[in-house]
Amino acid sequence: MLKVAIIGVTGYSGEELLKLLAFHTKVEVTYVSAKEERQQKVQEIYPYLKGVIDLPCSTLDVTQAEKKSDLVFLALPHTVSMSCVPKLLAAGKRIVDISADYRLKDPSWYPSYYGFSHEDQGNLAEAVYGLPEANREAIKKARLVANPGCYPSGALLGLLPFLKDKKAWVGALTIDAKSGVTGAGRKASKALLFGEVSENFKAYKVLKHQHEAEILQALKNANASEDFCFVPHLLPINRGILTTIYLKPKEALSTEKLQAWFASFYGDEPFVNVLPAGEFPELKNVRGTNQCHIGVGVRDQSGTAVIVTVIDNLQKGASGQAVQNMNLMYGFSETEGLI
Amino acid sequence: MLKVAIIGVTGYSGEELLKLLAFHTKVEVTYVSAKEERQQKVQEIYPYLKGVIDLPCSTLDVTQAEKKSDLVFLALPHTVSMSCVPKLLAAGKRIVDISADYRLKDPSWYPSYYGFSHEDQGNLAEAVYGLPEANREAIKKARLVANPGCYPSGALLGLLPFLKDKKAWVGALTIDAKSGVTGAGRKASKALLFGEVSENFKAYKVLKHQHEAEILQALKNANASEDFCFVPHLLPINRGILTTIYLKPKEALSTEKLQAWFASFYGDEPFVNVLPAGEFPELKNVRGTNQCHIGVGVRDQSGTAVIVTVIDNLQKGASGQAVQNMNLMYGFSETEGLI
Amino acid sequence: MLKVAIIGVTGYSGEELLKLLAFHTKVEVTYVSAKEERQQKVQEIYPYLKGVIDLPCSTLDVTQAEKKSDLVFLALPHTVSMSCVPKLLAAGKRIVDISADYRLKDPSWYPSYYGFSHEDQGNLAEAVYGLPEANREAIKKARLVANPGCYPSGALLGLLPFLKDKKAWVGALTIDAKSGVTGAGRKASKALLFGEVSENFKAYKVLKHQHEAEILQALKNANASEDFCFVPHLLPINRGILTTIYLKPKEALSTEKLQAWFASFYGDEPFVNVLPAGEFPELKNVRGTNQCHIGVGVRDQSGTAVIVTVIDNLQKGASGQAVQNMNLMYGFSETEGLI
Amino acid sequence: MLKVAIIGVTGYSGEELLKLLAFHTKVEVTYVSAKEERQQKVQEIYPYLKGVIDLPCSTLDVTQAEKKSDLVFLALPHTVSMSCVPKLLAAGKRIVDISADYRLKDPSWYPSYYGFSHEDQGNLAEAVYGLPEANREAIKKARLVANPGCYPSGALLGLLPFLKDKKAWVGALTIDAKSGVTGAGRKASKALLFGEVSENFKAYKVLKHQHEAEILQALKNANASEDFCFVPHLLPINRGILTTIYLKPKEALSTEKLQAWFASFYGDEPFVNVLPAGEFPELKNVRGTNQCHIGVGVRDQSGTAVIVTVIDNLQKGASGQAVQNMNLMYGFSETEGLI
Repeated sequence: MLKVAIIGVTGYSGEELLKLLAFHTKVEVTYVSAKEERQQKVQEIYPYLKGVIDLPCSTLDVTQAEKKSDLVFLALPHTVSMSCVPKLLAAGKRIVDISADYRLKDPSWYPSYYGFSHEDQGNLAEAVYGLPEANREAIKKARLVANPGCYPSGALLGLLPFLKDKKAWVGALTIDAKSGVTGAGRKASKALLFGEVSENFKAYKVLKHQHEAEILQALKNANASEDFCFVPHLLPINRGILTTIYLKPKEALSTEKLQAWFASFYGDEPFVNVLPAGEFPELKNVRGTNQCHIGVGVRDQSGTAVIVTVIDNLQKGASGQAVQNMNLMYGFSETEGLI
Repeated sequence: MLKVAIIGVTGYSGEELLKLLAFHTKVEVTYVSAKEERQQKVQEIYPYLKGVIDLPCSTLDVTQAEKKSDLVFLALPHTVSMSCVPKLLAAGKRIVDISADYRLKDPSWYPSYYGFSHEDQGNLAEAVYGLPEANREAIKKARLVANPGCYPSGALLGLLPFLKDKKAWVGALTIDAKSGVTGAGRKASKALLFGEVSENFKAYKVLKHQHEAEILQALKNANASEDFCFVPHLLPINRGILTTIYLKPKEALSTEKLQAWFASFYGDEPFVNVLPAGEFPELKNVRGTNQCHIGVGVRDQSGTAVIVTVIDNLQKGASGQAVQNMNLMYGFSETEGLI
Repeated sequence: MLKVAIIGVTGYSGEELLKLLAFHTKVEVTYVSAKEERQQKVQEIYPYLKGVIDLPCSTLDVTQAEKKSDLVFLALPHTVSMSCVPKLLAAGKRIVDISADYRLKDPSWYPSYYGFSHEDQGNLAEAVYGLPEANREAIKKARLVANPGCYPSGALLGLLPFLKDKKAWVGALTIDAKSGVTGAGRKASKALLFGEVSENFKAYKVLKHQHEAEILQALKNANASEDFCFVPHLLPINRGILTTIYLKPKEALSTEKLQAWFASFYGDEPFVNVLPAGEFPELKNVRGTNQCHIGVGVRDQSGTAVIVTVIDNLQKGASGQAVQNMNLMYGFSETEGLI
Repeated sequence: MLKVAIIGVTGYSGEELLKLLAFHTKVEVTYVSAKEERQQKVQEIYPYLKGVIDLPCSTLDVTQAEKKSDLVFLALPHTVSMSCVPKLLAAGKRIVDISADYRLKDPSWYPSYYGFSHEDQGNLAEAVYGLPEANREAIKKARLVANPGCYPSGALLGLLPFLKDKKAWVGALTIDAKSGVTGAGRKASKALLFGEVSENFKAYKVLKHQHEAEILQALKNANASEDFCFVPHLLPINRGILTTIYLKPKEALSTEKLQAWFASFYGDEPFVNVLPAGEFPELKNVRGTNQCHIGVGVRDQSGTAVIVTVIDNLQKGASGQAVQNMNLMYGFSETEGLI
């Protein structure tokens, strides 16, 4: 049994990770920590785990985490991961980091997108961006996996065929994304109160969301046009991201051809389901799963393609993908412990 | 007191109309009808109106409606309005029609967008499209007002400065719209059950929603480019439409200039509120009002403008706008009975 | 025009008060204050009020409130009201206090139910409990009205016929109440996040909610049995309280007789609607209104009566009732500005 | 591998059953049917099952179901089960019936509670009521298990210690239950539209819900008092039932003693979690699980006990419990395939 630690178990991603790993047949959760909880058993915090797991939840002690585990999941706020990674790597641990600290290859982007200077540039260079559909072989060998952001996961899975097959589009790329509230984390905030979010909807951080950087990085890596807009919106639901992508392929495509290409591109992927031509996905069908469902269509009059992807932001957008990455790193079946 | 009839009072638009008109100081509701309700008093159907109104609700009898009222509101499914309008106009009544039956000027569009042939083309030619911000003077004199669709209301209010000031854009226009469920009406349907909509989100009628026609008509009228995509989505909320519009103005604009232009364009409009530069609207702030709030931004790197509008689909997107049109038609204060 | 001040305008009750008073034809809002907001116009905080009101919102300055207004509404956290009331009364102002500070006649109850000692016992003795259906004449003359709590409003309107007509019941009284989240106020709290409340439901403060005191006080005043249980639950909705009351009347009653008695008891009340026998109320029918709808039934086999009441917690449970009290205090029509 | 059939796979219970059984390591789903679906693969109806299962979904053919399976789950509307059971039992199949058709031992109750006459009284006599915590040994040997209703599951788990230990209470028993909408099934109905349920709450079928019969049957079986009220309410959530039970134990008990007794009573139960004294359960902690969490408290002044139970209505209230029953019937680990 692989011994795993979860640092930051009381956030939404941490809870989801624990839930997935507690029932994973190849691993044993041996250490969990949280910031503000009083000393408690983890099964008292999450009473549905009574009888499944029995483990204290304490404040973080990196030495303990290191001593008790082979693989460490970091489900921490940005900048905190950066302070644990060097010590853990030095001790020979492997790491899946769910924060943004190791996602952007160019350290100079951190100040502008995240407002901090990167202090672990050596490991940043080594980190592997953990989107299995783009990067599977590198992930298998990685010591440090930077798990993608939730919005980039949804957006890039809709763009990957274009980016990997080097197919260009003309004019602007529009990425209109809508996310449930758990994407913002479990932090006390007036703006995230039920009374503010329920029966409400809004765009937020318009043209200045930090996840724009991850999308831009992927466009640059593929030498694609950088003329794009990304606008996130806050859905009054708990879980899920739906991303609507608009672009005009350079080479004209019918709906049927676009669907066939996507279906063939993702043919063997265990977690990507390209729907039949003319069908579009719903969030409820991926809730609680690590799947991404994709629907595509083309407006005949203009040739514009509409690509819609759905994921569960806590699974394929965070903790499910982290488990998928672990499965790859340790040679487990890629779908083990996931739906 | 102006005597008004509401035909179709048990749908969501009909209920909202009744609620607004019951408290309007210049009108008296003298006749209401509904399709499937058993003979009941309207205050029994809507118990919160007990003590405010006392009126039977029966199945439609056009002769009665005509006899008892000066102005008739039609809150009916498509094609049913068309069968009442000729008789009512002939009897000298004025009409605000909330259905789509008189919105599209070219009768040949009805078969393709709505699946029926128009059988009242004479009155179709006379009907005035009831968007006061675009068409105020014509509405004042109209005998028959075609109240705009909910999606076109939200989209056109975001585009009107471009269309009326004849400012062009380059490349495609993207209209990504998100609506609450009451937009689909109060009809028994599995797809609209709470169990299907709650904690869910989806795009629907992608590239084939009938409201595309109204938007296209407005673009044509303004000689604007017809290269646009309109994708509606279903929000798990009761009321409200948020529309996110993406376009690249031919003449480059900063966020501040765009905001200043919109604010000046809508300066005197009683129901349009252009937010300060950098602020974007939330649905909750227009819920239960006839207002449209607009926020704008420009992506400096590419010049793409993002325009976000919010309306309450049952008010500015239907019944509130119908009352606004009535106020104009009869010379009442435009804001009478509305917030 | 009566000049009114609202102290605490950024909470949910304060916002609702402002919304009601901004459109009230007999009053002018002349002063508003809030705790933590930066200096802002009130119409910037609530953009739907642009064009309706134009007033700065500053931190509380009691002298200013006093100087600018005749009547002061206190929409403050508990204990803060107590610190403003003496000065305002001394200056000749009248007050409607939405907090709990003046609701409990016996000052010795405050330490056990609210955890503080009462420091204004003189004015406490003078305060009138502002439930118009129980206390109308006293309210008219009051200088200081203690607006009832939201749960007691819902519970007492279901019990009032028993209490005022001195009808007894045998055995225990059960009050099972369910409230939307705005009852807890607009405060940053993890337990009230959308992510925690949505798709969730729970009982809370079981057998130790502070509103138990107000119910007990009413039972004592009526010499009724004090053997009761009150359990509040948190509904995943914004507004509304539904209270299900179970008791066994000493004198056996059929559903029809119980309904007839309640209907006759509340005959002239402008805001209470006793539904026909066999019908039970829904929250949506009182949302945004100051109404209370009541349904009753009797289990024939055992004689137990079930009484269900619904109110909007921000209206009849707080700010609507505060306006109703103001209307009584100043001889306005009792329904002015309310639905 | 045990071969299982699911009759009625497109309802909420049927979908949940399929989801549980598709991942159950001891069974193979070999036949599924549905009423109104067009001929489709089951993985097309539920796209998240693509790659997991590959099976046609056709209209019911009992002979096929019988031929292809050892165990048949009936997830059918009431009265339809009754028409399949005789043939299936005669063919040697075992059955778990999720409908109400075999729950009430006295056939004379069916006309009054369900409005139909029972036409399979022989098998009714043999059927075992499938509440494992009450009836485990009989379930193991049963050919026909009548899976309990969702409300009775929640209510009886809160009452079982009293009923099995023959502890009496004085006065009336109050059962105030609140359920999510999936309890009403996936049927087109205006009353269950998102637009009607969201931001709403109501009591329904007050004192005349058919599940009252199952509770009464259990009280009678235990010779307990039949003086009880059961009032169900409709929660604006998808899944979950919270039941608040009020009773006054004959023998006075403190909160601590009541908790200790319940904890000891349920000591070995794999799916019942009695929370520490003073803690009460939340629906979110049992969502997607087969668990029942229970919290208890006693009002010291009167001795009334408050017992709160939570279950997921589609799991412990229906399909999860059906799988638990199957596990017992075939000697699998009782928790296999369940959380």
